[in-house]
Order: sequence, then structure tokens, then C-alpha cells
Amino acid sequence: MAVEWKNLDQLKSFDELKNVKRVNIRETMSGENGADRVRRYSVPMAAGMAYNYAAKQVDDDVLAVLVKMAEEAQLTDKYRELYNGAVINTGEKRMVLHQLCRGQLGNDVIADGVNKREFYVQQQERIAAFADKVHSGEITNEAGEKFTTVVQIGIGGSDLGPRALYIALENWAKANGKMKMDAHFISNVDPDDATAVLKSVDVAHSIFILVSKSGTTLETLTNEAFVKNELTKAGLDPAKHMITCTSETSPLAKNGGYMDAFFMDDYIGGRYSSSSVVGGAVLSLAFGPDVFAAILNGAAEEDRAATETDPLKNPDMLDALIGVYERNVLGYPATAVLPYSQALSRFPAHLQQLDMESNGKSVNRFGEPVDYVTGPIIFGEPGTNGQHSFYQLLHQGKTIVPLQFIGFRSSQIGNDVDIQGSTSQQKLCANVAAQIVAFACGKDDENLNKNFEGGRPSSIIIADKLTPEALGALLAHYENKVMFQGFLWNVNSFDQEGVQLGKTLAKKVLAHETDGALKVYSDLLKI
Amino acid sequence: MAVEWKNLDQLKSFDELKNVKRVNIRETMSGENGADRVRRYSVPMAAGMAYNYAAKQVDDDVLAVLVKMAEEAQLTDKYRELYNGAVINTGEKRMVLHQLCRGQLGNDVIADGVNKREFYVQQQERIAAFADKVHSGEITNEAGEKFTTVVQIGIGGSDLGPRALYIALENWAKANGKMKMDAHFISNVDPDDATAVLKSVDVAHSIFILVSKSGTTLETLTNEAFVKNELTKAGLDPAKHMITCTSETSPLAKNGGYMDAFFMDDYIGGRYSSSSVVGGAVLSLAFGPDVFAAILNGAAEEDRAATETDPLKNPDMLDALIGVYERNVLGYPATAVLPYSQALSRFPAHLQQLDMESNGKSVNRFGEPVDYVTGPIIFGEPGTNGQHSFYQLLHQGKTIVPLQFIGFRSSQIGNDVDIQGSTSQQKLCANVAAQIVAFACGKDDENLNKNFEGGRPSSIIIADKLTPEALGALLAHYENKVMFQGFLWNVNSFDQEGVQLGKTLAKKVLAHETDGALKVYSDLLKI
Repeated sequence: MAVEWKNLDQLKSFDELKNVKRVNIRETMSGENGADRVRRYSVPMAAGMAYNYAAKQVDDDVLAVLVKMAEEAQLTDKYRELYNGAVINTGEKRMVLHQLCRGQLGNDVIADGVNKREFYVQQQERIAAFADKVHSGEITNEAGEKFTTVVQIGIGGSDLGPRALYIALENWAKANGKMKMDAHFISNVDPDDATAVLKSVDVAHSIFILVSKSGTTLETLTNEAFVKNELTKAGLDPAKHMITCTSETSPLAKNGGYMDAFFMDDYIGGRYSSSSVVGGAVLSLAFGPDVFAAILNGAAEEDRAATETDPLKNPDMLDALIGVYERNVLGYPATAVLPYSQALSRFPAHLQQLDMESNGKSVNRFGEPVDYVTGPIIFGEPGTNGQHSFYQLLHQGKTIVPLQFIGFRSSQIGNDVDIQGSTSQQKLCANVAAQIVAFACGKDDENLNKNFEGGRPSSIIIADKLTPEALGALLAHYENKVMFQGFLWNVNSFDQEGVQLGKTLAKKVLAHETDGALKVYSDLLKI
Repeated sequence: MAVEWKNLDQLKSFDELKNVKRVNIRETMSGENGADRVRRYSVPMAAGMAYNYAAKQVDDDVLAVLVKMAEEAQLTDKYRELYNGAVINTGEKRMVLHQLCRGQLGNDVIADGVNKREFYVQQQERIAAFADKVHSGEITNEAGEKFTTVVQIGIGGSDLGPRALYIALENWAKANGKMKMDAHFISNVDPDDATAVLKSVDVAHSIFILVSKSGTTLETLTNEAFVKNELTKAGLDPAKHMITCTSETSPLAKNGGYMDAFFMDDYIGGRYSSSSVVGGAVLSLAFGPDVFAAILNGAAEEDRAATETDPLKNPDMLDALIGVYERNVLGYPATAVLPYSQALSRFPAHLQQLDMESNGKSVNRFGEPVDYVTGPIIFGEPGTNGQHSFYQLLHQGKTIVPLQFIGFRSSQIGNDVDIQGSTSQQKLCANVAAQIVAFACGKDDENLNKNFEGGRPSSIIIADKLTPEALGALLAHYENKVMFQGFLWNVNSFDQEGVQLGKTLAKKVLAHETDGALKVYSDLLKI
């Protein structure tokens, strides 16, 4: 069926959705009915995980309309178009191929005479070979010594995703004999960022990865100069300590100043690039190519789960549909992502970019203004830390914030203590279970200051353990959720024109070509 | 004048505020008028800083009503009541004395026969003496060797604030010869958190600080057991490696299991406790007592600035008033805190707790429901990193999010590179200046996908450099802003009953005393 791109408010099912009776989750989540919902409202995900939406503000009536909406919005068809190579990124007139880094769901995608799946696999193989040589000592520093450390230089999607994934697997890798090299990250143009990282690493035994698709990112090129300075000062040859991840057409691709260059292309957006060489180089060097491959396998399995046409069996699509219901019908402005795992401490920061940069738009894919709200504010911190921080507002504040919990049955390292009859991991899990029910059901108290209204919706993704496969599946789940929501809102989730104006004005400030308010701010900051 | 505690919607000036003409900041911030605003709309802060609100959605008419509102709500009088020792925390029937840790603005405050200012100073002096002895080698480990490392065990206010402050000054301390000991933090009950930190430090040369006011915090006691296990396994005596920061009445105060105990009391809430021994112990050990004293001096100076009765000369009060205008009249649901300094990477996480836990309430100080929205969602990341992440939504999304920038003229370390005619620090400052104007003024484009509506309000705090004094002033500024907003909303900003229900239910899960949905979740998580 040919796809038709319609605005959300052109869908009949969206009108219907506005009129379905609202669900009182305080009631539906109580007693045996609540138990039944937790058992029923669950969808399998990749890597043995499950998306449980029992505590979301939906029931069979709401779900029936969401199913209609998925069909009317042709979500499956649009996803198929995307992975078959249609120009989904209308603003920049580009295909959207990040899923192709981890598997092939449809037709061969050919661009500029190249089979793109083969191209991405080839780059992965080149990285794997390079990483293996570094680990084996075939590639060494000038003194013939092994490299011990890898430092990624990048910002935005070249930083947040790879950094979140590295932190997520660092302890797992150490506990499983997979730790090959320490990784560090330089992102901010703040000179203290690069200086502090460079002081904390052994530069003589470090490989620096310069990551910029265009090869023109201000922060990244500045930080490259910073690093080259330090290497030179230490009597080292920068060209023997740096590799680059860039596009084949960028000025970095063939400048000879790097040990090697690995390539992505214009069909992979920065915030979707963790599956490409942007994540692949640093993660393969840090943990070995097999670990990166396992991440990709988990992601590929989740991508396949997202092809399921029945939304009630498709965790990524269902999550997307419920999110749009919460945003556009129930009117909630934000979503909190709350992983009960310290290893996922920076995963919410990655999702913040993924979601807010993709769907924080006011025009549809044809450049026409839309009359409904689009992407929500995304924020989050790991539990149980967040419980002792901002959960007060979530429980008793005036603004309802839908919640996305993530929980793991086992810790990554497996080291634990039994205190008062339970392990720390059990305490961690008990807390996330308790929070879901506390948010949903609340608790009456005559003292209104101690009263909990409940009615705060949440979902939880449950997994056995945060392994590379589970992490890959989580990454793909949120990417696919964002994609399906973009289809529903009819926005282009793959460009980011909103970041341009600031760059342009910053250049004017540096060139001292300002007047009015900008000149006074520049003077105040003594630029 | 006796203070009267009224709800926001009982104030005549609030009605008036709703009817003042809305400001079009796109217009007012353009041309010479914009330049004039940037010069005029600035209030001095402590430590030579300034709060500049030129790009906020206010003009002289709005400000005039905000001034009336400050008077009608008796903000100065309420602050005076607070620092003179009134029972401002109505829920828990407690005084609120965190400002007294850093100076005395009013009467002597006596509780239980003790002069509280003297008590707090005494504890600071005890910590200073202890830290000096550790640094000089008078206090050593069992082998007579110097301690090199300090590890804070705490969660919520015992973690976020002290951690944010430590990270904020780590590079400054290294660059200024003030680095005495490395600090690490264990917070989450996730066993991987404690395990990973313990593996990364040299426990034989570490002092662990157990921080829990009540001495009953689940996470903290569990992590204490974790640490004691590791110390014992390493053949070390836990009592020779641990100190505690707690209240004098807690079970930890006199249990003999610690090298020493330092005290706070019930008049200092967790999220306000960075100025007490909770922040004092770790920061004095890490950087020396003089650095902690300088933080307190900066905070005390800002506390004094907050006593100014004219809101237009009082940066903390004015920030609070504008925030309430944005939340309750303009209807914005969230505020983003955007420090242009990598050193402040965790400062927004601290403010998230400070603000959302204080004012995320639905009842007033008398326990009566309020009919208006209260505390906003708070989130943020350092710039320029955020520019490459969620700024897309801030610039072009459907939801307007007011912004709070923080900018510094100089870096902390002073190491920099000149590339294309400007240093990294200049690029950093140019970006924050550019963002303010881009958000306020926008830019027309026929292609609506590249169009910037503008009209996005922001303020900026400008300082020379992130020094201990500046950091203390920033800390106090936000504490005082939150306090004044609590006065305006007539909520109790100093309790947190919303965190209780989850704790109660988690205990039931661990005791296997659950039914319904909670039992099924517990089973799914295999607790």
C-alpha cells in the first residue's frame, strides 16, 4: 500500500481517541484487576526483555483505538519504506539507514552505486581488524608499546550515545574479562574539559578518535587541536595517535594526519550513529569487536520486533502510541526515563538528545506548521538515586509526568551483600516495583500533606541483566519509538535545523560583527 | 510587621499580574532597545557576579507588579522570620537554618539550649581540625600511612550537592595547588555502584564518610555494610577508616564504629545540607578547610544580598518572582539550567533535587490543596554540549521552556588554544551569548523548517571564574530562589512527604507482604 503522510489531527482515529473514556489507573491497578493487568499488559522485546505497560493510563478500549491509529497512520508501512531506503529525511533529502548498520530487514539499499548494508558491514570489519591489531600489539605507539587507552573526541551524537553505552558496559566488561582499554571522552568546547581529560590519561599510550561526520564541527576540531598540541608537547607524533570516524567526503577523510579513517555517511544522523563507526570504534577498542557485535545483534533483533504489524505485539510501536496519547490527549508535557541501574546513569542524557532533537519540531515533514504539540521534554536519573531527588514532584506535584522505568533482575558484577534478609539487588528491584504501584495507586491520608493521589502512569522494561545484547535492544527500542512517534506527528525526526541559528550568531560574535543586545552580551562576557 | 501566609491566588497583585500586557521579547530584545535592556536589567550578586534578566519576558510594567507582589507576599519579612528561627517547616514543625551554617543575618537562634550558629561553627572547626590532621599525616591508616582518598557514602542531599560541588572545583583545585585528596561517591543501592567505586579506589588509604542525618537511610546503611565487608576482606579495620556525618540523636552518633562523628541537626534539610558537615567533611578533606570556608563565604554574601527589600536589587528574589510569573501566568511547565562550564556538569542534577523536592507540592503550608501549579520540572546539561542535544526542542519545539544560563569569562585551569583567531573559552562565551539572542529574537525564514520564532525567555548569571566563592554564591542563589518561590506559592519547601509511600511499599515487597499488582511485579522481577 502506498503511504500517505497525514498530520496527526487529520486521522479519524485521533478524534476517536480524544473521546474514549479516560482510564482511572488508581482503580484499574488495584486488587486482582491490577494483578491481571500486570500479567496481560506485557509485550516481549529482544534479548528476552519485556515492555510492561500495565500502569499506563490505557485499557482495552483505549488500546483498540491506538491499534486503529497505528493502522490509519500506516506505521508499519512507513517503517518498511524507511528500511527499504525511501527519502524519509525530507528536510535534508536523505535516506535514513541506521538500522542497516545492524541488519537488513528489506530490500538491498543502493546509493551512489554502493550496497549500503555491505558498506556498513565493511566498516565494522575494518574496525574489528584494527581493534584486534591494537589489542594484540600489532599496532603500537611510536615506542612499540601497546595502547591502553582510547579517547573519543566528539559532541552531541558523537558523544552522548557512545559514552552512555560505554558507561553501561564498563562494569559488565570488567566482570566478564572483556575490558581491553579504558575509554575517555572529550566533548565540550570549554577548554577545561579537554585539559582535564588529557591530564587524567597517559597520552603516550592513548589512541584518540576524532569523530565528526562533516569534519567541520567547531567543538571537535578545536578539541582536536588541543589534543595535537598536547601530543606534540609530549614529543609524540599526533598522526601516530589518532584515527578518525567521518564521512568519505569530509575534509578529514584523506588528509593523512591519522593512523586510519573509518566511515559513516549522510544516511545516519548523529543521534542515531551509535550503531555506526561512531560507536563502533570506541566500543570495539574498549571491549573488543565481539561485544560491539553483540550490541548490534540485540538492536537488530529489536528492529525486527518493530516490524510486527499488530501494535499490541510490537513493543516499540506500542510505546510510541501510548506516548502520543499521553502528550496529545492527556496533555502531559514531559516524560521521565528512570533506569534502576547505575550503569545506565548517562542513558537518559542520550535519550534526551535522541527524543528531543528528533521530535522537538513545530512543522511537519512538508514544512507546514502543525496545530498540536510534538516531542515532550525528556529527563531522568537512575533509581534509587532519583527517589531521593525529584520523585517528590512526581508523586505530589501539580504536573503529572509519565514515567518509563527500566529494571534488571540481576546486577552486572554479581558482587552483593545480604542485609536484613535481602541483597542490594533485591532492594533495588523492590524499590522499582514499589514505585510503580505507589505512583499508580497512591494512598489516602487525612493529612493532605501525606496524601498520595496516585494516577501517575508508568511503564517498565524488565530484563534479566544489562548485557551487550540487552543494551543494543534498549537502544533500538527508543530509536524505533521516536521514529514511530515522528510518523504519528508527521514530523521529520531526522534533521535538526533548530541548532543552526546559534552557530551562525556565535560565529558573528567571534568575528566581532555584532550590534544591539548581542554586542552588549559579548562585552559583558569580555569576548 | 507580622507575616500573613496567603496563597498566591489570594494576592491582589497576582490578579493584576495576569492582566499586565505580555511582553514580546522578540521585539524588545531587538536593536538599541535590546542593548539598553541588557545594560539595565542586571542585578549584582555575591562574589562579583551578576544576574542578567534582559531576555526574560518582562518589562518595566511587569516588574512593577512583581515588586508589588513581593511586598504583598511579604517576602523579605518571611525570609527574616526564617533566619530568626521561626518554625517555617510547618509539616515537620522545624526551624530552617541552613543559612546559619554560613553566617548570621539576624537574632541568635537557640534550640534545646544551644546557640545554633555556634554549634554549626563548632562542627566546621572540628572538621577543619580533623582534615588538617589527615593532611599533615597526624591521622593515618593502621599502617601509619597517609590517607589519599575520601569516599562519601550518602544519597539524595548527602550525595547530589556535595558531589556537584566537588566536581565543580576539582579542576580549579588541581590548577591552584589545593587538591589534597581524591573524592569518590557511593550513592545507589544498586550493588554495582558500591562494587565499582570500591574497585577503583585504594581502600587501604581511603577514609569513608557515612552520611545520614537519621542514621536509618536504607541505601546508605546497605552501602556501609558493603564497604565494611570490603575493608574487612582486605584485612583492614573499618573503625579506622570511617567517619560519620549524622545528627547527635541518630544511632550512628555514638556507636564507636567510627574514627569520629560530625553533626548536623533537624533544622537543615538534606537538599540544603551542602553548607553543613554533609558537604563540609568531604570538601574539607578533598580541598582543605580554607576552600570550604571560601564556599561558605560566597554563600553568606549571597544570603545577605537576598535580604535587600527592593526586588529589583535582590537577585534571588527577582529570579523567584520571574519564575512564578513564567509558571503561573505564562504557563511554562519546566525550566532548563544551562551552565556553560563542564565543571558544573552535575550542578543541574543538584538543582533538580533542590527545586523539585522543595516545591513539587500540591498543598499549602497548612495542608490545604492549592488551585495553581507550583514547582516546575528542572533539567539541564552543560553548554555547549546541550546545544548538540536537546536545544533543537528548545528552539523549535511546541513547548516553551524558560532557560537559566550561567557563564564565566575565564576558564578554571587557564590552559587554552587559539584556533582561527579565538580561544576555546572565547568560543564557549560566544556560544552562550549567541544562544540568548537566538532564543529571544529568532530569525525569519521562508522555509518554515528553518524558521525561528524566537520569544524564548532566558536569564544569565555572569561571573569571572568558577571559584569557591562564586560556587557558594551560586548554591545560595538557587536555595534562596527556591525559598522565595515557596513563600509565593505558600508551600512548605522544607519537607518531602512524597518520598514516603515508595519506601513503605518497598519494605512490604522485601518482607513478601504484597498482593495484587505489586505481587506480580515482584514476581516478574524475581525478588
